Formats: sequence, C-alpha cells, structure tokens
Amino acid sequence: MTFSVAVSGASGYAGGEILRLLAAHPDVEIRTVTAHSNAGQPLIDHQPHLRSLGHLTLQDTTPDVLAGHDVVFLALPHGQSAQYTEQLTSTPLVIDAGADHRLRSKASWDAFYGGEFPEPWAYGVPELIVGEGRKQRESLVGARRIAAPGCNASTVALSLAPGIAAGVIDADDIVSVLAVGPSGAGKSLKTNLLASETLGSANPYAVGGSHRHIPEIQQALTDAGAPVPPRISFTPVLVPMARGILATSTAPIAEGVSDAQIRDAWESAYADEPFVHLLPEGRFPRTADVLGANTALLGLAIDRAANRVVVVAAVDNLVKGTAGAAIQSMNIALGLAETTGLSVNGVAP
Amino acid sequence: MTFSVAVSGASGYAGGEILRLLAAHPDVEIRTVTAHSNAGQPLIDHQPHLRSLGHLTLQDTTPDVLAGHDVVFLALPHGQSAQYTEQLTSTPLVIDAGADHRLRSKASWDAFYGGEFPEPWAYGVPELIVGEGRKQRESLVGARRIAAPGCNASTVALSLAPGIAAGVIDADDIVSVLAVGPSGAGKSLKTNLLASETLGSANPYAVGGSHRHIPEIQQALTDAGAPVPPRISFTPVLVPMARGILATSTAPIAEGVSDAQIRDAWESAYADEPFVHLLPEGRFPRTADVLGANTALLGLAIDRAANRVVVVAAVDNLVKGTAGAAIQSMNIALGLAETTGLSVNGVAP
Amino acid sequence: MTFSVAVSGASGYAGGEILRLLAAHPDVEIRTVTAHSNAGQPLIDHQPHLRSLGHLTLQDTTPDVLAGHDVVFLALPHGQSAQYTEQLTSTPLVIDAGADHRLRSKASWDAFYGGEFPEPWAYGVPELIVGEGRKQRESLVGARRIAAPGCNASTVALSLAPGIAAGVIDADDIVSVLAVGPSGAGKSLKTNLLASETLGSANPYAVGGSHRHIPEIQQALTDAGAPVPPRISFTPVLVPMARGILATSTAPIAEGVSDAQIRDAWESAYADEPFVHLLPEGRFPRTADVLGANTALLGLAIDRAANRVVVVAAVDNLVKGTAGAAIQSMNIALGLAETTGLSVNGVAP
Amino acid sequence: MTFSVAVSGASGYAGGEILRLLAAHPDVEIRTVTAHSNAGQPLIDHQPHLRSLGHLTLQDTTPDVLAGHDVVFLALPHGQSAQYTEQLTSTPLVIDAGADHRLRSKASWDAFYGGEFPEPWAYGVPELIVGEGRKQRESLVGARRIAAPGCNASTVALSLAPGIAAGVIDADDIVSVLAVGPSGAGKSLKTNLLASETLGSANPYAVGGSHRHIPEIQQALTDAGAPVPPRISFTPVLVPMARGILATSTAPIAEGVSDAQIRDAWESAYADEPFVHLLPEGRFPRTADVLGANTALLGLAIDRAANRVVVVAAVDNLVKGTAGAAIQSMNIALGLAETTGLSVNGVAP
Repeated sequence: MTFSVAVSGASGYAGGEILRLLAAHPDVEIRTVTAHSNAGQPLIDHQPHLRSLGHLTLQDTTPDVLAGHDVVFLALPHGQSAQYTEQLTSTPLVIDAGADHRLRSKASWDAFYGGEFPEPWAYGVPELIVGEGRKQRESLVGARRIAAPGCNASTVALSLAPGIAAGVIDADDIVSVLAVGPSGAGKSLKTNLLASETLGSANPYAVGGSHRHIPEIQQALTDAGAPVPPRISFTPVLVPMARGILATSTAPIAEGVSDAQIRDAWESAYADEPFVHLLPEGRFPRTADVLGANTALLGLAIDRAANRVVVVAAVDNLVKGTAGAAIQSMNIALGLAETTGLSVNGVAP
Repeated sequence: MTFSVAVSGASGYAGGEILRLLAAHPDVEIRTVTAHSNAGQPLIDHQPHLRSLGHLTLQDTTPDVLAGHDVVFLALPHGQSAQYTEQLTSTPLVIDAGADHRLRSKASWDAFYGGEFPEPWAYGVPELIVGEGRKQRESLVGARRIAAPGCNASTVALSLAPGIAAGVIDADDIVSVLAVGPSGAGKSLKTNLLASETLGSANPYAVGGSHRHIPEIQQALTDAGAPVPPRISFTPVLVPMARGILATSTAPIAEGVSDAQIRDAWESAYADEPFVHLLPEGRFPRTADVLGANTALLGLAIDRAANRVVVVAAVDNLVKGTAGAAIQSMNIALGLAETTGLSVNGVAP
Repeated sequence: MTFSVAVSGASGYAGGEILRLLAAHPDVEIRTVTAHSNAGQPLIDHQPHLRSLGHLTLQDTTPDVLAGHDVVFLALPHGQSAQYTEQLTSTPLVIDAGADHRLRSKASWDAFYGGEFPEPWAYGVPELIVGEGRKQRESLVGARRIAAPGCNASTVALSLAPGIAAGVIDADDIVSVLAVGPSGAGKSLKTNLLASETLGSANPYAVGGSHRHIPEIQQALTDAGAPVPPRISFTPVLVPMARGILATSTAPIAEGVSDAQIRDAWESAYADEPFVHLLPEGRFPRTADVLGANTALLGLAIDRAANRVVVVAAVDNLVKGTAGAAIQSMNIALGLAETTGLSVNGVAP
Repeated sequence: MTFSVAVSGASGYAGGEILRLLAAHPDVEIRTVTAHSNAGQPLIDHQPHLRSLGHLTLQDTTPDVLAGHDVVFLALPHGQSAQYTEQLTSTPLVIDAGADHRLRSKASWDAFYGGEFPEPWAYGVPELIVGEGRKQRESLVGARRIAAPGCNASTVALSLAPGIAAGVIDADDIVSVLAVGPSGAGKSLKTNLLASETLGSANPYAVGGSHRHIPEIQQALTDAGAPVPPRISFTPVLVPMARGILATSTAPIAEGVSDAQIRDAWESAYADEPFVHLLPEGRFPRTADVLGANTALLGLAIDRAANRVVVVAAVDNLVKGTAGAAIQSMNIALGLAETTGLSVNGVAP
C-alpha cells in the first residue's frame, strides 16, 4: 500500500528535509506540498536540491488543500499548527514538526511559549525510555497525532535518559552545552543568521535558561524516571556548519555506582536500537558522521575527578532531530518497518 | 629604547602570531627568527601574511642563535624549552609560549605531562585575581621569566576567578565546554586536523578529564581563593573556524548570594581592565568580535532555575590566549605601557 | 543476483564514498575492504560515518585478497593500480578510481604523470558525448575494465562537451576556474590541507597549466568532436567546504550561432539524462544542491558582450566526480538499471 | 593636526570597517557616527567588535549631522549618496564607499545602475596605472571628493592594468572568476546570504555579464591604456568565508612578447608600492594572508599552452577593497603619509 502525503511549510528547511527523506521512501507518494508566501511557485525554486520533485508546485497552506491525505506533515512556525489540525479530524495521521504539541505541562507552556495551550500528542522519539522496560516507541504504534521533537531537546534527552532511568546519574544538576548549526533556526531573515555573522565565529544564544527546549528535556527526563524535578543549565552555541548538533551533557555521578554500572545503563538502553548507537569506550562522535543520517551517536566518559558523567551526542538536527524522527515515527504509526527510507550512514567527509 | 627580540618556533602558528604583533609594536626590533626543519628558508615562505617581515630568514634554533637579545620568545612544542632556557641565563627576558613553565605542582605535572619537572615561571595572565585586591600583574612587573598561558586555561580562569574570589560561586563543581578553532593545536600534520575532517563538523576531543589545561585552571582558581580544591569537567569541541575560543563555563551559585552580588564580582574585577570586558546584562560575546584582538569578552547569566552562574567568554586563542598575553606580559615586565602594540578591537565580520 | 565486491583504499575518502554508496545498493554485497597501513583495524575506526559496515575489518591490499570477487574497486594513489590489475585477470569487473587508466595519449601521460604508461580503460562518464549521436555510455556496456574520471576533469568535460559537439563554442580558448573542496585531495597529511590553512580562506593551486586533469579534459573534448586541439586555462581554487566543485567554464561563442542554437546544444544533450541536468535560463547551481548526490547541475549563460558562453557546473567531487561515477558505470557494465543505488537529490542546506 | 571625521552607514559592514581602521589611525578623531533605522542606539550594539568606540551613539543620517567635519565617509546603499553630498559643499573631504561616483560614462551608468547620473569623483585606487608613468594616485592628491572602489572591480583592475599598460596582454578577451565572501554584499536580509545557504556551498551569482562592477573594470583598464574597448567575462562565486576575494583573471598573451617582458610589466608597476605586492614566480596568494590588511597580493603565471596570462589576486574586500582604499585615499588627499593607520600584514591563520 502506498500512503498519500501532504507536506506544509515545504519551502522551509524542516519541510525540505521531510521531502528529501520522503522522496526516498518506498511506501509514500508525495502528493501535495504547501507554503504561504511562496504558494504558486515550483517547489524546486525553493528546494533546488530536490531534483526528483521537479514536478511539484507549492499550493496554499489551507485545511482544504491538506485534507484528503493519509499523512499530513506540518512544518510551520510554532503556534500555527492548531488552526489546521482542528480541521484535519478525518486525516488518519498528522505529524507536527513544530513545538505546539510537545509539552504536557500547561505551566511550562505558559512560561516558555504562551498563548493557548495546545493538546499534547505522542512524542516522536521512539528510543526514549519512559519507565522500566518501556520506551516512547509504544505510544507511537498506531498513533494518529505525533509531535516531532525539538532537535536540541531530543539530543539531550537521548543523551541522559538511560543514566537517569538506571539511577546512575543525578538529574538535579545537569549541564548541557551544544554546538549547533544555523539550519535549526529555519530559513529566517534575521541578522544573526547571516553568513557573514556566522562564518568564522561561535555565537551563543538563549544563555541562562531561556531556551524553549528546556521544559521539553525536563519532561523527557521525568518520563525516564528522574526522582527529582530535573534541573538543567542549557547553552546553545551557533557554530559555522549548516547542520548538526554536538551536545556535551554532564550530570553528577550517583553515589556508590561503579563504572561498569554506568556504562551498562547506556549500553543496555541502546543495544538493539537501529538509530541510536553508543560508541566504544574512549570514542566520541563528530557531527559529520551523522550528516544526512537518522543516527544519534553517543560517546560516554566517566570523569571521577570531576564526579561527572559526560555524554557527547552527535545528531543531524534536520534528520534525527526533526524530519527523520518524524518519518521514523510515521513508520511506527503506520505499521511499516521502523527503518524504512532512513539511512543509518552519514555523508562524510 | 628599542628592545631586540628573537622568536623561536617562528614557522608555527604561535610563533607567527607573536611576530605579527611584534611587527606592529613600536618598541621592539625583531632581529632573529628561528625554526627547526625549516631553518635556512625565508620566514615569509611559512608566514606569507607577514608582508613586513620579508627580509627575515629562519635560522636554526640553538642557544647561540637565541643569545644576545633583550627578549627571547619560545614557541616550541612542550618539553623543548628547558634545553634553551638553561643556556639563556644572561638573557634579560625569556617568555615561553609552551606549557613547560606554567605549573607549580609537580604532582599535576607528572599526572598530565610527565618527564622532568621544569621550574615554574611568572604566569602571563595579568588580569587574574590572586588573592584579595591583588592580580597576577604584580608578579610580571620586572619579571625575567614568563610563562604565557594555555589558551583554554586562561579563558576559563578569567571567566571564573572573579566569582571564586568573591565567594559567589562554588569551585567544586565547575563545568566548562569550549568551542575551539584548530589553530590552537598548532601546524601539526594529524588526520583529525585536516580541513576535510573539520569543515562542516563539530569534533570533541580530550573528553572526560584528560585535557592538559585542567591543572592549569585549577591552579589559577586556587590562586583566586577557591576554598576547596577546584573540580572541573572540561570538554573542548573543535569547530570550523580557524581561530577562537567560545568557552561556556558554569558553576553553582553560592548559598545566599544575591544577583547583584554575583554581577558585582565580575564588574568590580574587570572594570578597569583594558583587555577583559564584561558585557552588559543580557549580552554575550562572539568569537568574531575578538578576532585578532587581545580582548577577552565575557557575558554573565544567572540561572536561578538551574542554580548556576553561566559565563560565556570569547577569546582569540592565538592573541589573548597566547601571543597577545605574551606581549602584554612583556610590556609589563619591561616597564612599557601595558597596552602597547595590542589592539582591543576585533576584525569582524 | 548479488554481486560480491571488494574495495581497496577503503580507509581513504574515495574508498569511503564508494562504500557509502555500495552500502545502499541493493544488488551488491561488500565482502572485502582493504588498506595499507591500517590493515587489521576495523573499517569503522577510519570511516565512523559508515555505521552499517561496523562488521568489516580492513585487510591488506594484495592481489590475493582482492581476487575472487565479481567487482573490485581500486581507490589507490595514482601509479599503484597496475600492480594489482595485472593479477586480477579473472576478475569480471575492475573499476579504478585513480588516474592510471584514463589517458589514451602516451605523450600526455608522460607530460603530466610520467612512469610506465598504463593501458587506457573505458572512461566512466556515461553522459559524455563521443561523436554524433553517441555517448560514452556505449563503451561501458559490458565493460570489464573501467577508469572512473578525475572529478575536476569530468565536471569541465560535461560542462563543455555539448557546445563543442554542436559547434556552437570554440575549443581553442577555454577558461575554467573551479572552487573545490579539499576532500578531492584525499586524506593526505599536507600542510596546505590543514583546517587552519583552509578555514576562512580561498587558496589557489596548480595555477598556470600544471594540473593533471588538463589532458583528461582535452581528451574528452576531442572525443566530443573538437575540430582543433582544445586549449584550456585551468585554475582550481581550494575553498572552505569539505566537498563540492563549482566549475565556471567559458568558451568563445562560435561565429554566427544564435542564442537558441547555443541553448539547444546543452538541452538536447542532457534532456534524457537522469544525473546531468541543465537548469532553466537564468538559474545557476550551488554545490550544496548536489551534496551526496550523483547529480551534475549545469547553468548556462550567453554573454554576448564578452562573446563567451559561460557554463557553471556543480558536482559533488566524491560522488558524481568519483564514487558515484564509478557505481553508475558499474551498473551499466553489469546490466543493472543505471540509477540503481544512486540519489539524484542532494542534502541541503 | 587631528582631522574630525563623520561616518555614515556606521552600523553596516563597510561603515564598521572604516571605523575599525580609523580607530587605529593616529591623525583622526571619530566624532560622529550615523545610521538610519538604528539611530539612537549605541554603536557597539551593532559593531560589538569595536571595543574602543563604546562611547559613540548612532545619530540620524542627515546633512546637518554630517556637516562640520573635516572628513565625511559615506557608506550607504548606492543611489543614496547624492542627497547628502549636495549639501556638504563646505566639507573639505567627502569619501563615498558606494557606487554612485565611480563611473564617468553615463551610458555605463544607465546600463548597469540607472536613475540620475551622479558626478564622477577621483577614483580611490592609488596604484592603478592611468597612462604612461602615471598612476591614479596623482588624482587623489588634494582631492576633495573621492569614490572608493568596488571591491571586485579594483581587485581585477589591479590584476590586469600592468599587463594592459605594457601591451603584453590583450584586453579584448578577459575572463575573471572570483571566489568572494558574503560580507561584500553587506548586512542585507536576503535568503541567499543566510548562513545555512552559504556554509558548505559555493554559490555563483550575477553570471553572464550582469554584475555592476564590469563597467568599472572596463573604465580602469581603458585608463590603463587598453587600445581596444576591454571585454570581460566576469563571474563571482560566493564561498564560505566571511571576507576575502580570490580573483583569477586571465587574458590572452599579446603576440611576440617574451616571458620576461610579461613578468616585468607587473614587477615594474608594483615594485615600489607599499600595498600591492607581486609574489615570486610560482607563488600564489591566499585570502587569509590579507585578512584585515590593506594589501593586494598578486601571483602571476604564464600559460603558453593556453596562450594566457593568469593573475591570481587576493584582497580583503572590506579593507583594500573598500575601507582601506578609502583611508589610503584619505591619507593622500590630506597630505598624510599614505600608509598611516593601515596594516600590510594579514591576520592568519
């Protein structure tokens, strides 16, 4: 069976990546692509790398245009999804790449986003531990509404959830610093996203606890079993690479645990995962190794002198961080093989 | 008076940067430049950007060649300085850009470097607090032997020393993650330093407590008055910019201190410093802003939710991190105006 | 049928890319990977992005190890292929990614390479015009020995061959200037390939007619029907991107031809090609649009004021320039669908 | 004597670079900085690298604010200068970094710019040959109105003028291809200037003869003595470096000239120039070597096989290409030493 698909926000970076992956997916037909100001133009004018989709024209993003597909992907600025989803009641599967449906806590929503609190949906990070012996994957089987994760949030959550779940690290003093590429900020005309501002420079932003992915991380780590409300110091740093997240996350070592217990927490959590890999001891990942791939690579160090576990994670923000997570979740929801249409190998160098 | 100068390691990155700055210094004459395998060749073949030094030829690095100058700069791989300095007894001022003479603790030396323990010299970071009302600057006045700092180490030490000295942060659970350019690793032919490996990628190294700048930071923070032995989780990440360090350092907020007390610690420490600037509240620095400059820019956030102070520091690893620190220290040692020949403005964009 | 494959030079960039593409190819089994100094080590230690090939170990590159496969790929430094191919007489298909078997002119070989002149093989650029109504593709059907092209050479040849064949441009005064990424130079430990030397800089090399791809271009354009020996001014410029070639090639407009005739030459040449696309008038390609793809994108301008046709071509040097060309040629030689295992869509941004 | 200076467009890239250089100039006082939408804000909010100018506030760009200074720099979008200059009649020296006053041909202006044709001013490239034994410098002595050059235009003009003047190359079939950084396009919010679009990619623009610097080059080469109207194929390619131009320019070798004659044309033209250097035979420049410097580095190859001279030139578009040229010209106009406040050494790596 071939599933018909519509992608909104198709002229942006997240929408473009969803389309790139769908174009290589054997079980879908990309029937409709939509945009706002660019409606009426050929898709390829805005996504010139999507050579196989040269026949598609951007349509207006309206509920009518999006209706009638098996799957609808929303890749819109946050706050814009609800107006469409309310009218897509008969659409079997809607996947939102925006932030609207990720948080279950209205208080967190109010503190970091504001406006009307949208309904929380199934969270599109299948590998996340959500209680003993259980993973987020379960909630995605047969799901009809899925929220793809924030790229930074899922990277940090995947980095630390195994240690939290196993009780080998403390959740109350996490520090994460991320080197991130500018594509995560979208195709936005802002001065700080200009090439001249980014080339040859490392630029921090949202320093000091204001980044919107913080409550998303806290929610995921609470789901993983954190016995206390997780506290996290979170600092993203824009660096001169178009894609990629290199997240360095550290947390205090829980009292009395051995190195073997620590390492085993991550090994056992991800041993059978197709897309989340723990590297051998002493090895750490590079973002180039996951470029274009749906893979999260983790490296683990135990620093007894600092009394901290250090997890370094590499993710392609547009793939495993967004579009790949969306399609992996779609595969699960539709009953397809979870890895269909997704590459585990990166494009390097 | 004009001081005669010799620079060894003149074909490398640190040596080249020392020469670039000296070429713009009104009180010195660059008389001698030396190298190892490149001896006999024109300097400009190896430093084609140093157009004003086209007349200089690289000589062999020997004590005889280096002797007879007012100032000798050593920009050699660590472990190689001692063989020269022992024979430069009559040289008024020797400044080592290598690691040999930075540490005062033989135990730290043995743990991180090994080999014979060299004599510790005055530490070339004038702005560092070393006890109440005192700064490292004092030890440099009239100094005859100066150790220029490690670039990562001085960046983190400058970031945190004011808070340690004022007792507003705790030294026992510091986390620093640094985005760094590859020039800090020198002109070394290693696979991981190839352009193809670095472009478009963020690559961590020395993860988990093995980086050699850790004891140097601990020494500086102890000097600043840390009541307990400082503990630091330290992770450098290579990012695709030739120069620059963007260090994100966090430490727990000390109990009972107010936001005003915290901010005041840094403000009062650096208010009169020509080269270390605290940015206004809510502002954070970018490495491009200090490119080519001897400036360290700091941004400070107080994250009460995470219970951590976050200091983001931007430094040009080759200037304030190495060559600029060396020349600023030279100025102090020779009784020149401290800012002579050094730019406070960066080259951006 | 599944074809068994061996790849030599598997720890290098070209070898790695051949493996990345083969890993996604449905009709091959990667049975053997070999290297020189790295023999005995896991492949993934040298190609950490090839997650699906974690089970492979690098073996020594010897004729014995390479023998017994249906297809052998050689990704070796030039001059090293002959020693193996002489002993692989019973191997059905050998594809050399090196330069050894590309040139048919011993004089050109002597002038640009030197040493023993190896036998010329079928040239792995299927889309190249080789006389009226014929393309290089024909020579690859059933071929047993194939020379993959030089990345710069095939890019320029594809750019100009249609105009030469149609007689709408003159071959005697071509100028090509190429912005190229450093991966084309291989994983070589040379100072000029260091990240610090490349980041933030554009660096020319082989200026003035010494680049080894010049005779390869001349040969291809002669095959395309150049009535005079092609003359080409060829300048490659290293720019800070890991992959990619952006070739700007210009040639004088032939006397008396119309704009429509010019444009038609390229349009008709590539209208049915799956991997070589002429963009609409006024559009020009970017290297990001072909990253990871086997696509060559061409943009064509007719500058009557300068009396020159300008063709801008974007190619991923490691894919369409090397590994993709090799596998596309393999597909043809083995009677598979030509596009098998190759993506037409790039990874952007 | 200290000259009072006003800089308009002070929040942009050209304005910022003029200020960076003026801040290191011993004979000027930066009294006034102006902008449009950013008026009223601290300069340092928009130019955070200009640490020494923290006391300056952006004023509105009006003739009144600009009046009363010894020197006024205009760094405005083209077409906006005239409205101010008409009212600055009593200002001793006005230097325009825009395009308004560069062209002497109304026909060229109409073809490439359009709108009212502004008065041509003295052209701020002192080293350009303008007839036998004469250089542009002469026209700048005591000048009251100066047009700083287009960065690409002056780079190509300096590359070829000596050969044109000496009659060793032909002007009727020039080909120039330039790798350029995005800062030349200014701090403009355009999609193609976003970091995500530029990082890891080479992007051509203005292909086929539409770039506005073409008539400026033609004018300069005609001044240099071209016996025929110069014809030039000109293609700029945006590459991922914030600054820099690497221009590869080729022209046919004139009949009957020797290699020595060719080389001598450039050597004699620039032998005594402080800021334009011809590299030794076989050497070619890199943009990193001139970063932040007012230096143009040229490398020359004579390709007899292609019958072309190849000149590769490296320039920092914001310095020698714009702000440095402006200040060098100011020095000449004011009777100061021409090199005052300008560095010949680049910041590398």
